[in-house]
Amino acid sequence: MAFHPVSDVASVREACERARFKGQRVGFVPTMGALHAGHLALVVEARRRSGFVVASIFVNPTQFGPGEDFARYPRDLDGDLRMLASAGADMVFAPDALEIYPPGEKTRVHVSSLTAGLEGALRPGHFDGVTTVVAKFFAIVGPCVAVFGRKDYQQLAVVRRMARDLMFPVDIIGHAIVRDPDGLAMSSRNRYLSPDERRRALSLSRGLDSALGLFERGERDARALERVVIESIVAAHVDVDYVKATDTESLSPILGSVSTTALLSVACRFGSTRLIDNVVLGEDRAPLVAARET
Amino acid sequence: MAFHPVSDVASVREACERARFKGQRVGFVPTMGALHAGHLALVVEARRRSGFVVASIFVNPTQFGPGEDFARYPRDLDGDLRMLASAGADMVFAPDALEIYPPGEKTRVHVSSLTAGLEGALRPGHFDGVTTVVAKFFAIVGPCVAVFGRKDYQQLAVVRRMARDLMFPVDIIGHAIVRDPDGLAMSSRNRYLSPDERRRALSLSRGLDSALGLFERGERDARALERVVIESIVAAHVDVDYVKATDTESLSPILGSVSTTALLSVACRFGSTRLIDNVVLGEDRAPLVAARET
Repeated sequence: MAFHPVSDVASVREACERARFKGQRVGFVPTMGALHAGHLALVVEARRRSGFVVASIFVNPTQFGPGEDFARYPRDLDGDLRMLASAGADMVFAPDALEIYPPGEKTRVHVSSLTAGLEGALRPGHFDGVTTVVAKFFAIVGPCVAVFGRKDYQQLAVVRRMARDLMFPVDIIGHAIVRDPDGLAMSSRNRYLSPDERRRALSLSRGLDSALGLFERGERDARALERVVIESIVAAHVDVDYVKATDTESLSPILGSVSTTALLSVACRFGSTRLIDNVVLGEDRAPLVAARET
Repeated sequence: MAFHPVSDVASVREACERARFKGQRVGFVPTMGALHAGHLALVVEARRRSGFVVASIFVNPTQFGPGEDFARYPRDLDGDLRMLASAGADMVFAPDALEIYPPGEKTRVHVSSLTAGLEGALRPGHFDGVTTVVAKFFAIVGPCVAVFGRKDYQQLAVVRRMARDLMFPVDIIGHAIVRDPDGLAMSSRNRYLSPDERRRALSLSRGLDSALGLFERGERDARALERVVIESIVAAHVDVDYVKATDTESLSPILGSVSTTALLSVACRFGSTRLIDNVVLGEDRAPLVAARET
């Protein structure tokens, strides 16, 4: 069973108000569609935590830069609706761009500091687009809980900061990265990869896995932990945007050695397709690769 | 009768939720305290339109620039509480700065274009401070209606834009400027004026009144309408920051002649005390000066 998406703000607002009035907690999962099992895990988590689950499908134009893949970002509304119904969403909000950004709109939400490095450094304005659209969605849906994937770790941190600062009464839940059995982090952009690129893309999770192993055997030097990831990726002939060990809260670079935890993030490019991945050293424990195939 | 102000976000949120649950509309009037009859008119208007009225008293640090009068901005909590009770407020929210801007907060709400001219040009960052704090208050209070004075006409326009853009389900009401009988627009900063300065400050409303008369007799040239205000103010030996005819919606300068309506704004300085005033030509009809004293 699939269901009909709702495209106007007023209907979503009304349905959520009705749910709250019945005493239900409203859960929210924002997506850009082209859904995979990672997204569905977010819906299942929201389902577990609330009585009325809204998922949004919106390829948000303001979070794409001029040279980025907005136009060719994958879209598959019918498939998405079927998947969301099966995962237990109660309502799907799939608005047009003009419903969210009507003519004359002039407001942006900006989070400083957390957005300076990593993706923010390479994608100027990206996070302003993210926080602006999420703030709008929070004001429309009024969720008690919203679930985001930890693959976009920086996005999760930035959205959590924004929600606290703008006093939205919502719990922001970060869900563990969902991976293919061979370790590749699920991403809507994976479908762009050729079979050869997909094989070489395993160098990201394998590199992170090696760093995790090294960390668990006692290595604390941030540069050494980054190096093992870089080596894995470069050996697969993949273009590296960055490999960076940062504080898990402030996201500022770790200069010397890791004390308790560190976010180890990687971004690279296959032509114009960017992939990101990460691991939290000192927190994530299971190996990223479920079954080694070597 | 005065009442006890509430200083924490959670208590205000809870009270407003309770009111909504009882089916009451929540009205909101944000102030910086040091209240006068102009503020009370806003509370009366909110009272007329809603069942539960929250007024806030918060001298918002982020809307003051480095050289501005944050530290010496007038504060009179006891007097304010008495006035708000008499005007019919149900709750007064008077938080500390740390309740609204806790350590680590990093989010600002920015409205472009509308903030470029007039006060925005002279007070860089001012409107980011305004829209940020109003967005926080809207998220806390969740009002159906919020009332702002039209003396801060640009603030009203910017807040209205922000509320629409961030999808807050709130009607933003602009209340007519409340004036002393001799025409001076009421302002918390009027108490800074010496008797001589107060006399000379009448040149603002008298200049605007002259422009209004000129407009009603058929003058449409924006420069001529501005000129009569400037002449009035300069004759009173007052330092002019700007006198500007702008579109009432976009706030962009009117280059040639006024078609239907125009916002005629003025700002000037008495030492470090700034006063602003305005009239909407083609809309405001009554003379600004109730009883001429000449």
